[in-house]
Amino acid sequence: MSKSILTVLKDNASLITAALTERLSDQDERYPVLAQAMRYSACRGGKRIRPTLTLEVCRMLGGRDEDALPLACAIEMIHTYSLIHDDLPGMDNDTERRGEPTNHVVFGEANAILAGDGLLTLAFETAVDGALPAERKVEAVRLLSAMAGPRGMVGGQVIDLIGDRERLDEETLTRMERMKTGCLIRCAALLGVIAAGYSVESDDPTDRARTEAICRYAESVGLAFQIEDDILDEGEEESKTTFLTFLTVPEARARVEELTEDAIASLNGFENTEILIALAEFLAGREK
Amino acid sequence: MSKSILTVLKDNASLITAALTERLSDQDERYPVLAQAMRYSACRGGKRIRPTLTLEVCRMLGGRDEDALPLACAIEMIHTYSLIHDDLPGMDNDTERRGEPTNHVVFGEANAILAGDGLLTLAFETAVDGALPAERKVEAVRLLSAMAGPRGMVGGQVIDLIGDRERLDEETLTRMERMKTGCLIRCAALLGVIAAGYSVESDDPTDRARTEAICRYAESVGLAFQIEDDILDEGEEESKTTFLTFLTVPEARARVEELTEDAIASLNGFENTEILIALAEFLAGREK
Repeated sequence: MSKSILTVLKDNASLITAALTERLSDQDERYPVLAQAMRYSACRGGKRIRPTLTLEVCRMLGGRDEDALPLACAIEMIHTYSLIHDDLPGMDNDTERRGEPTNHVVFGEANAILAGDGLLTLAFETAVDGALPAERKVEAVRLLSAMAGPRGMVGGQVIDLIGDRERLDEETLTRMERMKTGCLIRCAALLGVIAAGYSVESDDPTDRARTEAICRYAESVGLAFQIEDDILDEGEEESKTTFLTFLTVPEARARVEELTEDAIASLNGFENTEILIALAEFLAGREK
Repeated sequence: MSKSILTVLKDNASLITAALTERLSDQDERYPVLAQAMRYSACRGGKRIRPTLTLEVCRMLGGRDEDALPLACAIEMIHTYSLIHDDLPGMDNDTERRGEPTNHVVFGEANAILAGDGLLTLAFETAVDGALPAERKVEAVRLLSAMAGPRGMVGGQVIDLIGDRERLDEETLTRMERMKTGCLIRCAALLGVIAAGYSVESDDPTDRARTEAICRYAESVGLAFQIEDDILDEGEEESKTTFLTFLTVPEARARVEELTEDAIASLNGFENTEILIALAEFLAGREK
């Protein structure tokens, strides 16, 4: 591989931030507060894991960046809106995220609610932008909506709220994480398949095998990332159910390794897998 | 006309409520609170003006109810989410709507935020359901997203928030109402055009003339409805800028009449216009 995974992540993050900044600039000039609030949360640092997955799956499958970028921006807008709403006083009531004041602290609660609503709505307009065939765009909308909605991320957040009040069992915790975080990561990877011009709904055996392999990669990578995150945050919030409520640290590390191996194995049969393999290793905390 | 407009509205409302109830039932069985919260606000009474516009424009143009219903449900989900979020403590902090406790009073603030997010997200999945060609579905998504997003409804809500603190001039008030309420009404009517199988983006002169006529109908009807609403609510919230800040009641009534005539005139050239004419008259408070 010519570039290190850290360079790949940095280059992709720049590409995504530039595309998001462009899309979030063309708003109301007389009342700029909404665009400012949306950009405040969407156009900042961060690893941009989800849109990187969209870009890199598309690239691995031989697709073009210009077809992946609208979908990559859409998934990042949805991820960003979910963070803004999660931080609200009526939800987690967080005043800081990555060392900076949260959206509602800077712009007020009402503007933060509307900035989240605006980003979620714009995500769908963004997803149907670009030159993909209409059938692929419809698949992208269906996927985004299913994975981000009540049967996906929003449903996971409801279970997470219950987990703040009562102890979840391991099965429910896994299910909550799969919905709250996993669905969007799976969505990001499958959007890369769509961006490369392939159907993720088709019953054709070749299409199905591709979709299933990418799903398995994304699910394993997503869960490994989540457990790794719990290991790094160990002891921070004693009251909250995490994977370390059920696993010792060595057990959790073994689980991360296993999931990472599974993610890498799921790429057998594809060419140009170097970056996605390096990404799986990076997310498991293995990067050098 | 065989049915009175009140009967048409009642029949359409039943159709919409049944379709929404079905779509909002198939959710998480173990954690039903999210579906309950979404249904609480989406599956209740109300005139269902927006989905009725979608249905009746589609019917006037010779389209089928089964193609209009997914789009009608989508627009009503978006309208419903906007009411749930509008009522939140961080926004208008309303505890009652139509004589019933608001969503967050019943389900708590966090669940109300998520119920709104869930409905907004599901709206897009719903919009691409059904048997319309993929090109029409993409137009529907683009329209919904543009009209409900930062350049439409959400943008209007931001100006409305500013109007709570400072006096708006008449031009800004009109602009705010066009964005906050008008965009969704225009969207509802144009979704009826799409449901009937026609493009609302095409540059073909026949398509453009149809789209422009329906837009004009919806814009006039929407603004007339808003001014009529301000007349009915006169004196309720003295501090808030409304059309009666700039118009006397007789001037406002004359404006409603003028807009209603304009809405009706915009239907010249269509057949089967009886119901849309009766709807314009009903919304102007003229119904017998």
